[in-house]
Amino acid sequence: MPMKYCGKCGNRLASRVPPGDDRPRFVCDTCETIHYENPKIVVGCIPEFSGKILLCRRAIQPRLGRWTLPAGYLENGETLLEAVRREVFEEARARLTALTPYGLYNLTFVNEVYIMFHGLLVDEDYGPGPESSEVRLVAEADIPWEALAFSVMRETLRRFFGDRNKGGLRFHMGDVQPG
Amino acid sequence: MPMKYCGKCGNRLASRVPPGDDRPRFVCDTCETIHYENPKIVVGCIPEFSGKILLCRRAIQPRLGRWTLPAGYLENGETLLEAVRREVFEEARARLTALTPYGLYNLTFVNEVYIMFHGLLVDEDYGPGPESSEVRLVAEADIPWEALAFSVMRETLRRFFGDRNKGGLRFHMGDVQPG
Repeated sequence: MPMKYCGKCGNRLASRVPPGDDRPRFVCDTCETIHYENPKIVVGCIPEFSGKILLCRRAIQPRLGRWTLPAGYLENGETLLEAVRREVFEEARARLTALTPYGLYNLTFVNEVYIMFHGLLVDEDYGPGPESSEVRLVAEADIPWEALAFSVMRETLRRFFGDRNKGGLRFHMGDVQPG
Repeated sequence: MPMKYCGKCGNRLASRVPPGDDRPRFVCDTCETIHYENPKIVVGCIPEFSGKILLCRRAIQPRLGRWTLPAGYLENGETLLEAVRREVFEEARARLTALTPYGLYNLTFVNEVYIMFHGLLVDEDYGPGPESSEVRLVAEADIPWEALAFSVMRETLRRFFGDRNKGGLRFHMGDVQPG
C-alpha cells in the first residue's frame, strides 16, 4: 500500500534515507516517526491422512476455484503453531497432530515468507470453512497440479512427494517465483 | 505503534472487526482501507569458526554493551539468506558459507519471529560494524551467558551447544519469553 500520511499524527510523509540507515523509508517530518515496511509471514500446512493430502478449493479471490494447501497470515500475539492450527481449522475444519516445520520459502515479489509445516490429521473429520468451497483428501497421483492456486504450493508439494518417495522428510528452503 | 490516521488518505481510523474477519483491525471509514498489523521477521546467525562462535558487543540501544549473535529485520525485497549475510556483514564485517536454517522462535510479546541460521566464517577477517563496539570469537566455555543481550540468543546458543555436544545439529522451534 502506498503510504502518504503518518499513522501517528496524520501529516504528510516524505520518502528519505534516515540518518544511519541505508535505504529510503517513509519518514514523518512533523512527529519524526519512521514507518518501516517489512515482509509478512504466511503459515501453511501439508495435512496428511493415510498417505493422502488435504487440499482446499478456494471460495474466495484470488484464484477462486483453484486448489491450495491451507495457509494464511500469522497474526500478532500468535505463535507459528497456533497460526497453523487456526488456518487449517478455518479453511478445512480439520485438526492436526505431529506438526513439524517443513520449509521456508521466500516470495520477494510480494514481500512474504512462507513457513510451511507438515502435520497429521487427528481423524477424518474435515470440511469446507467459509473460504473453501470443497475440501478433499487427495493421493499423490490425483494432485491437480495444473489447478493449484499458488506456485509456493506447487513447490511445497513437489518437494514433499519427492522426499516421501525417497523415504523421509527433510527441512527445505527455497525461493519461489510468481505464476 | 498506535495507528490513529489512515496512511493512504490521512483521515482518522476506527478500530473495528471488519465483515468476515474475527478480530479488530484499524479501518478507514473514508477510503475503506483496512490496516493489518502482523509480526516481523528477525533473521540471525550462529557464525562459527574453528569451533568458536562470533559474538558482537552492542554499541547501540537497547542493551548497549551486552553481547549478541548478529541479527536484524528482514527487509522488503530480500531473501532470508540475503538478510543473514547482510546482517552478519553489517554487525561483524564477516562473510559466511554453508548457511543452514537452525531454528524458529516465537517472540509473541514483541510480535516477532526469529529465524536463526548456522554458518561458517569463510576466514578470520571480521570486526565491528557501526552497531558493534567489539566482535570476538568465543569458545563455549567463555560465552558470557549473564551478559547476553536477548533471551532468544541465550536460548539459541544453549540449544546449539547442546546439539553439538550430542554430535549433530537439528532444526529447532520454540517460544521465547522476555528477560
